[in-house]
Amino acid sequence: MGEKLKVGLLGFGTIGTGVIRLLTRKGIGISRWVELVKVADIDLERPREVELDSSMLTADAESVVKDPGIDVIIELIGGIEAAKKYVEMALELGKDVITANKYLISHYGDELFERAQKSGARLLFEASVAGGVPIIKILREELACDRILSINAVLNGTCNYILTRMEQCPGMSCQQAVKEAQAKGFAEADPTLDVSGMDSAQKLSILIRKAFRTRILPDKIDLQGITALSNVDVQSALEMGYRIKLLARASREGDKLTAWVGPALIPADSIMAQVKNEFNAIMINSEAHHEHTYIGKGAGMMPTAGAVVGDLYTLVNHRNIPTVFAEEQIDLPLLERTEVKCRFYLRLMVKDQPGVLARVSSALAARNISIASVIQKETEEDPKKEVPLVIITHEAAVGAVDEAVRVINKEPVVMDPTHIIRIMDVL
Amino acid sequence: MGEKLKVGLLGFGTIGTGVIRLLTRKGIGISRWVELVKVADIDLERPREVELDSSMLTADAESVVKDPGIDVIIELIGGIEAAKKYVEMALELGKDVITANKYLISHYGDELFERAQKSGARLLFEASVAGGVPIIKILREELACDRILSINAVLNGTCNYILTRMEQCPGMSCQQAVKEAQAKGFAEADPTLDVSGMDSAQKLSILIRKAFRTRILPDKIDLQGITALSNVDVQSALEMGYRIKLLARASREGDKLTAWVGPALIPADSIMAQVKNEFNAIMINSEAHHEHTYIGKGAGMMPTAGAVVGDLYTLVNHRNIPTVFAEEQIDLPLLERTEVKCRFYLRLMVKDQPGVLARVSSALAARNISIASVIQKETEEDPKKEVPLVIITHEAAVGAVDEAVRVINKEPVVMDPTHIIRIMDVL
Repeated sequence: MGEKLKVGLLGFGTIGTGVIRLLTRKGIGISRWVELVKVADIDLERPREVELDSSMLTADAESVVKDPGIDVIIELIGGIEAAKKYVEMALELGKDVITANKYLISHYGDELFERAQKSGARLLFEASVAGGVPIIKILREELACDRILSINAVLNGTCNYILTRMEQCPGMSCQQAVKEAQAKGFAEADPTLDVSGMDSAQKLSILIRKAFRTRILPDKIDLQGITALSNVDVQSALEMGYRIKLLARASREGDKLTAWVGPALIPADSIMAQVKNEFNAIMINSEAHHEHTYIGKGAGMMPTAGAVVGDLYTLVNHRNIPTVFAEEQIDLPLLERTEVKCRFYLRLMVKDQPGVLARVSSALAARNISIASVIQKETEEDPKKEVPLVIITHEAAVGAVDEAVRVINKEPVVMDPTHIIRIMDVL
Repeated sequence: MGEKLKVGLLGFGTIGTGVIRLLTRKGIGISRWVELVKVADIDLERPREVELDSSMLTADAESVVKDPGIDVIIELIGGIEAAKKYVEMALELGKDVITANKYLISHYGDELFERAQKSGARLLFEASVAGGVPIIKILREELACDRILSINAVLNGTCNYILTRMEQCPGMSCQQAVKEAQAKGFAEADPTLDVSGMDSAQKLSILIRKAFRTRILPDKIDLQGITALSNVDVQSALEMGYRIKLLARASREGDKLTAWVGPALIPADSIMAQVKNEFNAIMINSEAHHEHTYIGKGAGMMPTAGAVVGDLYTLVNHRNIPTVFAEEQIDLPLLERTEVKCRFYLRLMVKDQPGVLARVSSALAARNISIASVIQKETEEDPKKEVPLVIITHEAAVGAVDEAVRVINKEPVVMDPTHIIRIMDVL
């Protein structure tokens, strides 16, 4: 094996602590091939769960990156500016980089990979998507010779926890579930990145790069978060044999690609519907391997640290063959958002009076949207009160549904904006 | 990349056809790094789905193995004698070997890996377990630095199809389901290897070698097949919120290992309970990655061929670092079968008369087996008729339960041998 790989770690936080724990463990492990040389963090005083010789610690990240005795930089600083600066610096020096930073890879991947290719360095990022399963490695290696048709994924543990709770507790609003998630440490103080779907879009952008060899910035992905979901939707879905998940989907449609993140009804007896709480799932359909699914924890100290160390293992094994990592981009064009087709769940709040269904269904029929089923419950209360009306459509284009709903929302009998949720028949 | 890897293929059957299809595909693919040179099969006349230049075909497998222009041998002959002979020959010549032969690896792995290590050749076998997911690669690489605590797996698509059908069709016997599976091509003419659980035991033996670095021959694994299962068991399980799967399980218990294959009740709302028909699933719990699950097709032309080509990709990438593949065995000792503990489902056929439950429960109590619940349905028919009595126990050792059941089966009111099925609370 020759010399051990010398590692410098930037960021001694939760994940950093997990990585150090794995790198310094006795017995089976990677310590035969890898040696942790330096650890940088701006705060060296804070107490930590693992002890390190003080000579290994420094507050000067740049000195670690530039240390000629260090071959590999692990970036666990998070955020953008500092992380980007040090990753660029390391790649320019020809050093391999491992990062868990999904923001960095999804938004600045193009320039970073270009920089890496110039200097012959490798940039690995397994921990940036679904830490608990090696999905990037699988896409890069096992599926390198396969042709991927679609990805359906649950990529955000916070949203999945919130939706699981809304399902378990009839009446619980999304906002209440967010508060509970925050109290349990499953959601950030500012949960916007998660509940808006942007975190999932960043991860989907990374998966698309590997799976479809296509570069799409997260902002170009059709995005819908979970904050507008009401408990009525979650419970109505259950009654109809579905569960609502925040789905991230990319698929080939002819020679184009569709990519979206949004709530979706999936069959309650599907594998993915059983993926609960903070778990993530990635379901791939490909020509040779057919349908295959990977389920694990999306975050957390040890699953993420395990992914970082898995990348180190890859660097040890692939030391002499950097070319295989080169990205060959195909860059499939995106199918127009309005042209993407699927079945839809439409939930209206309407006045309980005659003729409502006729007006709504004629607005749909006018755009060739065919109704598969309607659920309107009887009410014994004040007939002027608003009641939920749920419509399941056959396959229709997003654009047509949007248009129909614009018309429907103007009807005086329709009290609130109609909720539009996709239906996906995943395995 | 230098020279292309030259490949010789032994066995031009279904899987071989799939491999050729992937190796000769245009566009993205492995053809940049790998070249198929020769294909051997005893029958060269049979029509096939892919066309090959006749100069590539030969009936003489040995000439392919010995061809100095060939670096890698793919063994897809199946069976034992010829397959073993050519694999040994190739490894002795220092050629890397890829095989889909689970029998070969599980029964003769020790001597084959030793031979490989001597000559510096690599022996890869991704396709031998759950073709649709790269579980061997994940165990070997991603989890090389993790510590695995347990594996729960569904490894036999034929049995899973049979159990799925027995669940869907109340009253359908295992034998009827086997016939249906045979008619649909999901079961062999002689299904013994599958329904006896031996196929699963072979695959579990292979997983244990990688996951626990322990060598256990398939015959040493505690084995129970599905043929004794009655539809009453499958439907009773459903009523209680469980599904029955043929589970293959290995876990650390202190410094020992448990390993068994047998029918097990698992929660109906678990991920694994949704793994239906010909699908396989492997659920791993490990210290760093925590619980993670891999689901895909267990067999079939393209999933298996995809796994073979995935191994080729690994050979291309790892060309210069054979040592990392070396097996470091720990060889955990097996926990005595009788000492393995879990909860149990016991199903008796008893005469519907007073005092039955008292006799049965005292036989259990005498061995400290505690009852969690009992289901005995009322019957309006002839009171002398036999009725099913289902008992769920708290955790108990296999040995104690076996003893108690031996006593119970001797009771005159017990009409048939009691069915003993494990209960596992998988995720």
